[in-house]
Amino acid sequence: MGAKTNAGRFFEDYALGQRIVHAVPRTISGGERALYHALYPARHALASSDSFAQACGLSAPPLDDLLVFHTVFGKTVPDVSLNAVANLGYADGRFLRPVHAGDTLRAESEVIGVKETSSGKTGIVWVRTIGLNQRDETVLSYVRWVMVRKRDVIAPAPTASPPDLPSAVPAEDLTLPEGLDFTNYNFDLAGEPHRWGDYAIGETIDHVDGVTIEEAEHMLATRLWQNTAKVHFDATNRPDGKRLIYGGHVISMARALSFNGLANAQLIAAINGGTHAAPCFAGTTLRAWSEVLDKAETPNPSIGALRLRLTATTGAPFALRDEMGKYLPEVLLDLDYWALIPR
Amino acid sequence: MGAKTNAGRFFEDYALGQRIVHAVPRTISGGERALYHALYPARHALASSDSFAQACGLSAPPLDDLLVFHTVFGKTVPDVSLNAVANLGYADGRFLRPVHAGDTLRAESEVIGVKETSSGKTGIVWVRTIGLNQRDETVLSYVRWVMVRKRDVIAPAPTASPPDLPSAVPAEDLTLPEGLDFTNYNFDLAGEPHRWGDYAIGETIDHVDGVTIEEAEHMLATRLWQNTAKVHFDATNRPDGKRLIYGGHVISMARALSFNGLANAQLIAAINGGTHAAPCFAGTTLRAWSEVLDKAETPNPSIGALRLRLTATTGAPFALRDEMGKYLPEVLLDLDYWALIPR
Amino acid sequence: MGAKTNAGRFFEDYALGQRIVHAVPRTISGGERALYHALYPARHALASSDSFAQACGLSAPPLDDLLVFHTVFGKTVPDVSLNAVANLGYADGRFLRPVHAGDTLRAESEVIGVKETSSGKTGIVWVRTIGLNQRDETVLSYVRWVMVRKRDVIAPAPTASPPDLPSAVPAEDLTLPEGLDFTNYNFDLAGEPHRWGDYAIGETIDHVDGVTIEEAEHMLATRLWQNTAKVHFDATNRPDGKRLIYGGHVISMARALSFNGLANAQLIAAINGGTHAAPCFAGTTLRAWSEVLDKAETPNPSIGALRLRLTATTGAPFALRDEMGKYLPEVLLDLDYWALIPR
Repeated sequence: MGAKTNAGRFFEDYALGQRIVHAVPRTISGGERALYHALYPARHALASSDSFAQACGLSAPPLDDLLVFHTVFGKTVPDVSLNAVANLGYADGRFLRPVHAGDTLRAESEVIGVKETSSGKTGIVWVRTIGLNQRDETVLSYVRWVMVRKRDVIAPAPTASPPDLPSAVPAEDLTLPEGLDFTNYNFDLAGEPHRWGDYAIGETIDHVDGVTIEEAEHMLATRLWQNTAKVHFDATNRPDGKRLIYGGHVISMARALSFNGLANAQLIAAINGGTHAAPCFAGTTLRAWSEVLDKAETPNPSIGALRLRLTATTGAPFALRDEMGKYLPEVLLDLDYWALIPR
Repeated sequence: MGAKTNAGRFFEDYALGQRIVHAVPRTISGGERALYHALYPARHALASSDSFAQACGLSAPPLDDLLVFHTVFGKTVPDVSLNAVANLGYADGRFLRPVHAGDTLRAESEVIGVKETSSGKTGIVWVRTIGLNQRDETVLSYVRWVMVRKRDVIAPAPTASPPDLPSAVPAEDLTLPEGLDFTNYNFDLAGEPHRWGDYAIGETIDHVDGVTIEEAEHMLATRLWQNTAKVHFDATNRPDGKRLIYGGHVISMARALSFNGLANAQLIAAINGGTHAAPCFAGTTLRAWSEVLDKAETPNPSIGALRLRLTATTGAPFALRDEMGKYLPEVLLDLDYWALIPR
Repeated sequence: MGAKTNAGRFFEDYALGQRIVHAVPRTISGGERALYHALYPARHALASSDSFAQACGLSAPPLDDLLVFHTVFGKTVPDVSLNAVANLGYADGRFLRPVHAGDTLRAESEVIGVKETSSGKTGIVWVRTIGLNQRDETVLSYVRWVMVRKRDVIAPAPTASPPDLPSAVPAEDLTLPEGLDFTNYNFDLAGEPHRWGDYAIGETIDHVDGVTIEEAEHMLATRLWQNTAKVHFDATNRPDGKRLIYGGHVISMARALSFNGLANAQLIAAINGGTHAAPCFAGTTLRAWSEVLDKAETPNPSIGALRLRLTATTGAPFALRDEMGKYLPEVLLDLDYWALIPR
C-alpha cells in the first residue's frame, strides 16, 4: 500500500493526446450564485435577476460566466497545475451554453502540446479543457498553458509540440444563449444607457472604484471553486508568509468593477487570451479599466459583441506596458474577452 | 462618446418630485438567507425555520426584514448617496409584504425634499424609496435623507422643501403579514418565554454578547446588498486607510444580538427612525441594548407590537447621550423600530 | 419583570434525566451547502454533486455530515455550554439518516450524567443530544460532556452518575443511508482509486496541505451553525484579545483536508470520540493526518467501513503524544470516526 495522496503531475507525466477526467463533479445552486454576489461587486442584471433574464428571453437566469469558468478551472488544478511554476496563459475560451442553478459541472482535459524549456528543469504543457453539465453537454471550452516542474531533470525532452492557437475567437464563432434577445432590454433596470453603438474601437473606460482585498475573501472564493492549489491557502508555503491570490479572483473582481461603464456587457461569450502579469496579495487595492479592442455584429440584430481588454491594476488607469513592451509593475491582469451587449 | 461611468449625482441633480428608477433588480434565494445567518448571529425562528414559519400561519418563511431593507437600500446608493457626505436619517419605514426566497426585488425613489445647507457647499436631499417584488407589489417603503455635495458651489439654492415626517409609524398603520398568527406559537423552539405582556414601556434590556467585526465580513455583506459606496471597500479612499462599515451592517449585527432578550420580537414591522451616531470600523467590538419605547395591540389578538430603541455601542449598556443631549462617543447606532411579538 | 437575557445554565441547573428542548429550528438549503464548500476545502463527491449522489443510489445528495453535526451542536450551546469551562469530549455519535437541502433541523438533549469535580467549583455534565428533522425523525445522536461552572461554590454535590460510554460505535450498528450503493462508483470522478481493501489497519496518511485560518472565516462558520458562544466572537472576552475558534471548525477543516488520501471515505457514519487537545486561534496553519484504526464490512457488499483517527496539527504528521501519553502541544484535534467507503 503506497502513498495515497496526490503529489500532482510532473512534466514527464504529460503526453500529447493524453486525456484526463478531472474530479470532482459539482452541483451549483442559488447558494453559489449568492456567494458570487458577496465575493465580488457583481451587478450585471442578467445574472442578478430572474425577472430580467426572463425579459431577455432566457428560460432561467444564467449563472455568471466566470463562476462557471472558475468551477471548471478548479477541477483541473489537481491534475494540471499542482506543480505548476507559472500559469502562462489562456486562449480560445468559448462559453457554449448557459449554466443554471441546479446544474452539475464536471471537467475533462486533453493535452494538446508539450515543450521542454531551455533550462531543462521545467516544461510547458498546453491543455484544452472542457466543462460539461449533467446532460454531458459542453458548456465551456478553453486552452490553458502552464509551466510545470520536471520530476527528474535528466529525463529526456519530448518532441516539442506547441499548438497553434488563435489570437482571438472569431466573432462569427460566438455562441448566443438559446432564446437571448435584447429587443425589449430595459436600460434603466440594467443601470446604464450605453448600447453597442455607443462604444468605439480604441475607446478606454476607467471603472473608477477600488477594492482592497482580504485573505478571508480570496480563500472563500478559491475554495468555492474547489481549487486546491496550496499557494492560495498556506501562509507557510512561501518564505515571505504571503498567500498568492488565485488569478481568477482578480479576474472576477475586475470584471465586476467593470459594471461601472460596461453595465450592459451582460455576458462573456469568449475569453480570447489572458495574462496574470503580476501576483496579487491580500491588502492590494485593485482597480480596473477597459479598452474596446473590436466590435462585431451577431446573427441576432438586437445583440452586438464587444471585444474588450480588461485590465486590473493597482495604479492609474490606462497604463499597461513600459517602453520595452513589458507590463508595468502595477498591472496584475490583462484579459481579452468578447462580451454580448444590446445594440 | 462621453464618459460612461457613473460619477454619482450632486445636489443640483435632484429636484422635488423627481422619480428615479434604480438599477439592478435582484433575485433573493436560499443563498442570501444562508449568508445572512453566516454574517450575523441571526436566530429569530420565523426567518430561521420553514417549519416554524408554517406553524405561525405563513405560506413560506419570510426573509429577514433587514435583508430586504439592505437589498432595496443598496440599489439606491448609486443614485442617492454616491456623493453623500453624510447619511442623516431614516423615517416612516414600513414593511408591507414579506419577501420569500425566489422573489426579485427592485427599487424606485421619489425626491420629497431638498434644502441647501448654510455652508452653500452641500444640500440635504430627502427621498422616499419603495422596494417592489416581481409582481410590482410594494414590499417596503421608507424615507431617507442624506447630505450631498454640490457640483458647483455657486449654483443657486432651490426653494427649501423639507418634508413633514412622522416621528414614528402609527401603530394602527403596521401591516401584519398575511396569515400570521401566534396562537400556537412554540416558545421553547423560539428560545425565550417572554411575551408582549412581559415587556413594560421604559424597560431596558442588555443583549450581553459582543462581536468583533472584521473587514472581510462587512465587505461580503455590503457587496451582497450590491451597495457600491466606495468608502466601504477601498482602503485608499481615506487618509487613515480605514474602510467605513456600511451602517446597515451595524443595524443587522445589533438586531441579531438583540435575540438575547428579544427572541420573540420576530418581525420588524416598521423603522420609525435611525441615526448612525458614529462611524464603525473593523476591529470594533459591538454590543447592543434595547429600550421598550411603546407598546400597541394589533388587529390579531395573538400578535402585539413593541416599539423598541435598538442601540449599538462599543461601551456599557444603557448609556446613550451626554448632558448636552449629544450621543456619547461609544454609541454607533440609535434605531427606533416596531417589532411584532406574540401576546 | 426580571432579566430577560439568557445567562446560561450552571452546574446546579442540570439533573440526571432532565430533558432540554433546544431553540431554534433551522432550515438548511443549498445556501448552507455552498457556504460549507466555501468555508472548507470540501471535495467529497457525494456531497458535492447531485449526479454523483444519484449514481450512488441516493434520492438526493446528502448534506455534509459535519454540517448536520454543527447545526445540531450549535443549538445546544445556549443550554449546555454557555458557561462551560471546557468541552471535554464526544462519544457514541451516530448519523442515522441523511439530511437534504430543504430539511429543518432541531435538537433535544437529555442529561445522562453529572459529577462534581474535586475542586468543588465546577462539575461535569454529560448530555445525549439528538438532532431531528421536520418529520420528527432522528438524524443524529451523540453524547457530549462539558465542564460547567457552579453558580454557588457551596451548593451540595449531586450523586455522581458518570454514564457508561462505548469506546466506539460497534461496526454492526452503523447505519447505511437508504439506497446507498457503491457498485457503480466512479473512482475517476471521485478523485482517487483507493478502495476499502486498499487501506490497512495501522496505516497512516499525511493529507499534505495546510490552511491558514482567518478570523472572518471561523466566525462566518460558527454563526452559520447559530453557535452563540461568546469566546468565538468577542475579542474583548480574553485578556490576550484572542478569539477561540469553535472546535467544530477545526474538525471540518481537517476532515476536508483528508480528501487528499481519503477521497472515497464519502460519509461519516459515526463519531466514536473526539478531543480538542489544544485551542485554535486565527493565524494558525492547520494540517491533518489520519490513521486507520479498524475496518469493517457492512450489510451491503459494495460498502465498507473504515474507523479512522483524524488528527489536526500545526506540526509534522504522525506525531500525537509525548512519552507521558500527553498530547503534543502542536496537536489540536484527535477525532475517532467511522467512514463509509466503496469496497
